[in-house]
Amino acid sequence: MNQQQLFEEIQKKRSFLCVGLDTDIQKIPPHLLETSDPVFSFNKEIIDATAEFSVAYKPNLAFYESLGSKGLVSLEKTVAYIKENYPEIFLIADAKRGDIGNTSNLYARAFFGEQDFDAVTVAPYMGEDSVKPFMTYPGKWVILLALTSNKGAFDFQFIEDRETGDKLFETVLKKSQQWGSEENLMYVVGATKAEKLKEIRAIVPNHFLLVPGVGAQGGSLQEVAHNGLNSKCGLLVNSSRGIIYASGEVDFAEKAKEAAREVQQEMEALLQEAGLI
Amino acid sequence: MNQQQLFEEIQKKRSFLCVGLDTDIQKIPPHLLETSDPVFSFNKEIIDATAEFSVAYKPNLAFYESLGSKGLVSLEKTVAYIKENYPEIFLIADAKRGDIGNTSNLYARAFFGEQDFDAVTVAPYMGEDSVKPFMTYPGKWVILLALTSNKGAFDFQFIEDRETGDKLFETVLKKSQQWGSEENLMYVVGATKAEKLKEIRAIVPNHFLLVPGVGAQGGSLQEVAHNGLNSKCGLLVNSSRGIIYASGEVDFAEKAKEAAREVQQEMEALLQEAGLI
Repeated sequence: MNQQQLFEEIQKKRSFLCVGLDTDIQKIPPHLLETSDPVFSFNKEIIDATAEFSVAYKPNLAFYESLGSKGLVSLEKTVAYIKENYPEIFLIADAKRGDIGNTSNLYARAFFGEQDFDAVTVAPYMGEDSVKPFMTYPGKWVILLALTSNKGAFDFQFIEDRETGDKLFETVLKKSQQWGSEENLMYVVGATKAEKLKEIRAIVPNHFLLVPGVGAQGGSLQEVAHNGLNSKCGLLVNSSRGIIYASGEVDFAEKAKEAAREVQQEMEALLQEAGLI
Repeated sequence: MNQQQLFEEIQKKRSFLCVGLDTDIQKIPPHLLETSDPVFSFNKEIIDATAEFSVAYKPNLAFYESLGSKGLVSLEKTVAYIKENYPEIFLIADAKRGDIGNTSNLYARAFFGEQDFDAVTVAPYMGEDSVKPFMTYPGKWVILLALTSNKGAFDFQFIEDRETGDKLFETVLKKSQQWGSEENLMYVVGATKAEKLKEIRAIVPNHFLLVPGVGAQGGSLQEVAHNGLNSKCGLLVNSSRGIIYASGEVDFAEKAKEAAREVQQEMEALLQEAGLI
């Protein structure tokens, strides 16, 4: 999927919502635990309930890996289900991978060859050769961690470079632009650091940003939109717990749908305000 | 496994060799491709051939994930085989994970709960709450990326902090020491940067270091040992391709054994020279 296609989906659905499929077996409604694959059953219902309000899904790999190889089977079924039924939806593997070049090649094969994700999140610490292998697949995307939503972001990401004065996350943004383009590279910027979005937009005016941290983590959608929207929207805002665990009972899918619709309506107003729809 | 036990294994085997089980289906000897699980068949023979010369095994997750969920099954079988037959061997998941706290918790559950690894490699970019969840399992270890062996290490790891003058990898070493101890925290330091090992030893005199990059990547074992050994050895030096692909034919296990023995003998001499055995 290219940038223009993603923008058109955003305009069509009047939404830039990404639903985080962080499916924790310990939080799945009890009645689903009797099915042969509770994680997939849960995901399938969540997807069917929220697809009309979402332009992206983002399973975080940790939730699947914590169940061993059978968790990976649930993930593969989820990916196949989305690709078959909602091929227009942008599918992100939130994996935060990154290794030496020949090994990152294999991670790229895992997410873009073996599975059919559109994008994978990548950690920048190991530099260029750890990131570029993910960019060799046409139509596929790297989403590089820049400024994350967690408290630990303050440990290293704000360190100022003695030579340039740039903070580490700014250096990541600047240097990585030489590795890809706005057609294969996005950045993670946490909603909890929304006040930084204006400065970040000055460095990467045209790239899409994946913004986690709205909702349970405390970020504000309004602030994210006001500081982060660009001429092609340029934002995918993720919500996980606020949507998929809106209810822990048999009505979980219905409640997830209501929660997704609510976010979509807020996003529609923000897109209209910005003249993007 | 604690530090003393690891040191005792090193003394017993007169080796600080870690064999990287980076098993690439495309490099497995053809005759194994007819078995029901070629990756596990290959690993099993490699392990049986090299266990007497190795104190650690390190499967890199990318090689298994690139085969989808069936690759994870091969990995689970490999882990179970090592734990059952060679329980004294230190088992490292080279996964380079790291996510927000509640998600790192799940990765920790994946590697230490669902599987039975002794250690997992973790990327530091997201800071304290991304690292600490891995330290809550008694006897289990975090191996934090400090200075990696690849070319991309120069992109960010050498950035100097305007306030302290420390390079980023030095800041990682210094700050992370507050998160754990030499009983649950090791560091990755690439052999290709062996000249830095003396400075690194000044910062972390007592921690174990996992050193990749000897062999195919060009690092020198002599230089690593001379700059990195401490009073409890303090080094695990990894070799992958040089051992597991010493031959691509039916004699692959025998040749791997010879290659492992050769490294072990070199290590024995270095341990003797340092008065550690």
